[in-house]
Amino acid sequence: MLVNGKPGNLISIRDRGLLYGDGVFRTFVASHGKAQQWPLHYRKLQHDCVALGIACPDKALLFAELDGLLAQHTGGVVKLIVTRGEGVRGYAPPAAAKATRLWDISPLPDFPADWSTHGIKARLCQLRLGHQQHLAGIKHLNRLENVLATAELSDAQSPDSGIAEGLMMDTAGNVIGGTRSNLFLVSKGKLVTPDLSRCGVKGVQRDRVIAWAAQHKMPLQVRNIGLDEVLHADELFVVNSVIGLWSINELEQRRMSGFPIARQIRKYLFEQGA
Amino acid sequence: MLVNGKPGNLISIRDRGLLYGDGVFRTFVASHGKAQQWPLHYRKLQHDCVALGIACPDKALLFAELDGLLAQHTGGVVKLIVTRGEGVRGYAPPAAAKATRLWDISPLPDFPADWSTHGIKARLCQLRLGHQQHLAGIKHLNRLENVLATAELSDAQSPDSGIAEGLMMDTAGNVIGGTRSNLFLVSKGKLVTPDLSRCGVKGVQRDRVIAWAAQHKMPLQVRNIGLDEVLHADELFVVNSVIGLWSINELEQRRMSGFPIARQIRKYLFEQGA
Repeated sequence: MLVNGKPGNLISIRDRGLLYGDGVFRTFVASHGKAQQWPLHYRKLQHDCVALGIACPDKALLFAELDGLLAQHTGGVVKLIVTRGEGVRGYAPPAAAKATRLWDISPLPDFPADWSTHGIKARLCQLRLGHQQHLAGIKHLNRLENVLATAELSDAQSPDSGIAEGLMMDTAGNVIGGTRSNLFLVSKGKLVTPDLSRCGVKGVQRDRVIAWAAQHKMPLQVRNIGLDEVLHADELFVVNSVIGLWSINELEQRRMSGFPIARQIRKYLFEQGA
Repeated sequence: MLVNGKPGNLISIRDRGLLYGDGVFRTFVASHGKAQQWPLHYRKLQHDCVALGIACPDKALLFAELDGLLAQHTGGVVKLIVTRGEGVRGYAPPAAAKATRLWDISPLPDFPADWSTHGIKARLCQLRLGHQQHLAGIKHLNRLENVLATAELSDAQSPDSGIAEGLMMDTAGNVIGGTRSNLFLVSKGKLVTPDLSRCGVKGVQRDRVIAWAAQHKMPLQVRNIGLDEVLHADELFVVNSVIGLWSINELEQRRMSGFPIARQIRKYLFEQGA
């Protein structure tokens, strides 16, 4: 673990990341000493910092820190947090704030292998995401909605029940995505993914699926999606940078199998992964 | 500063308070070695912990820690943060999480004296609060909306401009309160304060104003309030545990003075303060 470039796992209790969730983060996989999709993750980090008015640390500085981290741990799930830094008391962002850089690395989770090959069971969460256009799409540290939605699954998420992800809707009744993943539908030969301009997080893996669609001339729509459309899709899958791609084989009363498009995309994400 | 009962100012970067804003906090004044309204603050802390499913630390334990803190610093602004604690990676609240207790104390802010006696200039923030009924009312650590709304005032909040507070509306057009305070209107002999069931924070000082109204048989309504009603109120004031009560003497084009009801309430809050 690194805190502002030095080995350590402690941060000031006056850091605004703690006080207000005033920061952003990235989670991605490293293997054989190399971070997967680092350029995309840095670009997203920078985008999110700009959106919140946080001075994003330099790419070369972060890459050097990452390099040092991966010299000691060749693989795992890497988490990078950038906060606005410390400041005087009060919500106002200090003019002279210096961003805090935090790195952590954990072992890769050992998800059941058939979640990737045969899909997962998913469930709908009761919690509805609120709309906040100024925070939508950003992977910021205000994640209580995700925490509460995931807590709903806590019994269900035991290995026995096999519920691997919860899908979240917004207060207007649109399906937005998983608690920790972005959602795609295959419907009548098109890819469809939720509009995230009012809530949700635009993940790097979502961008990669959108890029795949463009490369393969597959029509893709980003728009509002109701629950009924989700339950009648030809294929459903969720993506993020750690899980890769999981097809959904069971959601509420609906069961699905096959997933021809999801398989192609999963292969692409995997082969272009490094 | 105290971290889980020990002198210190550092917290693990794996604490969920940092990772997800998964915690709650209290801010209040201490003077002459005594915390103002501690029983109310503990009750609110407990309420907010329950709402998020956090195991609230014992009242006696917290009071003993506060006592120790105030033995060294007889006065100032006390901040108490309770997070869900550390946990394994992922949004799911760990079943065995042990709450983290953080205490900090800062000097009392030196607001201009006439803000209390003659009122403040306030301004409307552009940012609109999103609706999230599961988080509304709770003083949790997900405060990016307040940060961004306050950032709008950063130029205005210089001593020269004299803007002391920003008022925030929600996405439906209701006025919700200040960036760090609760709002009250005096209108046709009634007190009116915004309904906070979809956003906003229910502060301890707000409860005390509501209690004053009951004691003094002054009609009080908690309901949706539009901007027009705010701009035509007989009196406007904001309250929180640090500022006490500030009347608003200027908001947008509207100027006000006098504040007979607000003066009575301010006297009550002050005299019953300890």
